[in-house]
Amino acid sequence: MSHTKAYAAYDAETPLKDFDLERREPGPHDVQIEILYCGVCHSDVHQVKNEWGNSIFPMVPGHEIVGRVTAVGNAVTKFKEGDLAGVGCLVDSCRECENCKDGQEQYCKNGWTGTYNGFERDGKTPTYGGYSKQIVTTEDFVLKISDKLDLKAIAPLLCAGITTFSPLRHWKVGKGHKVGVLGLGGLGHMAVKFAASFGAEVTMLSHSPSKEADAKRLGAHRFALTSNEETIKSLGNYFDFIIDTVSAPHDYNVYLGMLNTNGVMICVGVPPEPAQVVGFNLIFQRRSIAGSLIGGIAETQEMLDYCAEHNIVSDVEMIDMKDINEAYERMLKGDVKYRFVIDLATL
Amino acid sequence: MSHTKAYAAYDAETPLKDFDLERREPGPHDVQIEILYCGVCHSDVHQVKNEWGNSIFPMVPGHEIVGRVTAVGNAVTKFKEGDLAGVGCLVDSCRECENCKDGQEQYCKNGWTGTYNGFERDGKTPTYGGYSKQIVTTEDFVLKISDKLDLKAIAPLLCAGITTFSPLRHWKVGKGHKVGVLGLGGLGHMAVKFAASFGAEVTMLSHSPSKEADAKRLGAHRFALTSNEETIKSLGNYFDFIIDTVSAPHDYNVYLGMLNTNGVMICVGVPPEPAQVVGFNLIFQRRSIAGSLIGGIAETQEMLDYCAEHNIVSDVEMIDMKDINEAYERMLKGDVKYRFVIDLATL
Repeated sequence: MSHTKAYAAYDAETPLKDFDLERREPGPHDVQIEILYCGVCHSDVHQVKNEWGNSIFPMVPGHEIVGRVTAVGNAVTKFKEGDLAGVGCLVDSCRECENCKDGQEQYCKNGWTGTYNGFERDGKTPTYGGYSKQIVTTEDFVLKISDKLDLKAIAPLLCAGITTFSPLRHWKVGKGHKVGVLGLGGLGHMAVKFAASFGAEVTMLSHSPSKEADAKRLGAHRFALTSNEETIKSLGNYFDFIIDTVSAPHDYNVYLGMLNTNGVMICVGVPPEPAQVVGFNLIFQRRSIAGSLIGGIAETQEMLDYCAEHNIVSDVEMIDMKDINEAYERMLKGDVKYRFVIDLATL
Repeated sequence: MSHTKAYAAYDAETPLKDFDLERREPGPHDVQIEILYCGVCHSDVHQVKNEWGNSIFPMVPGHEIVGRVTAVGNAVTKFKEGDLAGVGCLVDSCRECENCKDGQEQYCKNGWTGTYNGFERDGKTPTYGGYSKQIVTTEDFVLKISDKLDLKAIAPLLCAGITTFSPLRHWKVGKGHKVGVLGLGGLGHMAVKFAASFGAEVTMLSHSPSKEADAKRLGAHRFALTSNEETIKSLGNYFDFIIDTVSAPHDYNVYLGMLNTNGVMICVGVPPEPAQVVGFNLIFQRRSIAGSLIGGIAETQEMLDYCAEHNIVSDVEMIDMKDINEAYERMLKGDVKYRFVIDLATL
């Protein structure tokens, strides 16, 4: 075992603090990574506060990890010492079910292993995430990272990026489609960038007029103020897809009415309370509400390669490790453009 | 104008009673039909009781109409006097929008004309439905009816039939798919017949053990008692599709959990209250909830032709016109196998 200092929440009441973390020595198929940057995902806050009721403490959050390979097991073929590498939300899965075999590990029938707040396949060794100096991960779940892009701005691609890229690819969103993006946060700003890059007409849906300029800078073609009833009315039956990135409670029915025939509202945010859905809003125009979860490993690599080719990264604000709690507070207020990234040199 | 006696609800408080109904004389493109049988749809009750808040009184319900052509306009080419003919939920639409041009009049962007409780394209002439001796309809919205099948058992195909046929076709349900059908009523029993006929493995989902034998007689391969928690658990991630025909309030989340990866719960019933949807149930396994509304005219003809070829009709209980209110009461209790059909000879 190697030891590395990490930040951890010991329980829902205790603030984050130092934690002497044991990481396994790299096995034959493992890659050891010195973590350089780690993005701060909205789910980190949910988990630290045990808002989903499944938190395991002590916890080391963080699943938007980029760094440099410091050691590899003797059977590793994809990576060598010194390579850039990334780890996203998954560090393992059963590898045997139809979804794993199909490269959709995020829908593993036997439950994938979360990068943190989970257990290794042995069912008892806890996993610890990226608010840490180091991680050891089986090479099949490590991503290759391009040196063409700003490394710290790549980190959020590992969750916010793939979570929006995957549904846009699954539903084949592109030229000729009208896409609404609901919420301009970590996920929303990536959804705008990807949907625009894929050739769709992108409308930012926001209740805050102050977001218009930035939304357009990020690639949105249109901005619609959702607090304006006339605007909502004018968007009736308008969109082919709405990517809903909002995890605060909101009225789905307002947005369902904006979907055209066969339109799909794709939820990637999870509000804490069940959403209320009026049946007629689905039945008229044969609309759907769908969910989508992160993406598979192969698809995550495809996304990273696409980003390198098309010069797409996240807009980030760098923070020191000690400022994580303040970052959480600001994130909950939507006060971040558009993802906090921890510089692990500050740990 | 020709006059024909009909049953009508004058307002939400007044029971159905005789009503001296004016029908237009057939215009050049119109078909005049002597109504022989009319199915009793669940929506008839909603409308008569103004439960959807959009009822127009006096009302003549009924949109599962079969009969015989008694006269045609001079420009009519598809029908001649003496032909069997059917009329479903729609008697007109704008015919200009993309959906109408695409044969999906049920999603007409300018609003289709309901067979009853609507207005003709002039926006002021009320439409009256099939609890009546006669109807005059533009030939483009009249369906050809085969003489190979039991005529009175064809009537419910015009709504219950097409409402279940259309989504099964749209989502290309067939061999290799596992389909759950929720609710064994007018729609549910047709969903079982069609899904089985298309080659899918069909499971009837019901809280009533008494329905098992009948469900299997209708074509279901499996029966699952939804009041049994073990049964629900055993169906986790099981279905590719669930056809939800229930219009009483029920917990969508129970059934969402039964959907496999990319599974779709297709709602054709509309509960009176909004459904509560837990976001995680969509996001895990990339599940969807969709709605579907009746079907287009061409698709309705395709369904009728399919039924004639495959000997599929509705299971019906015949009633006299005077017993309609009792039929409504029994229908609300689910006490009908599986569609009441009015013999208009009794009017």
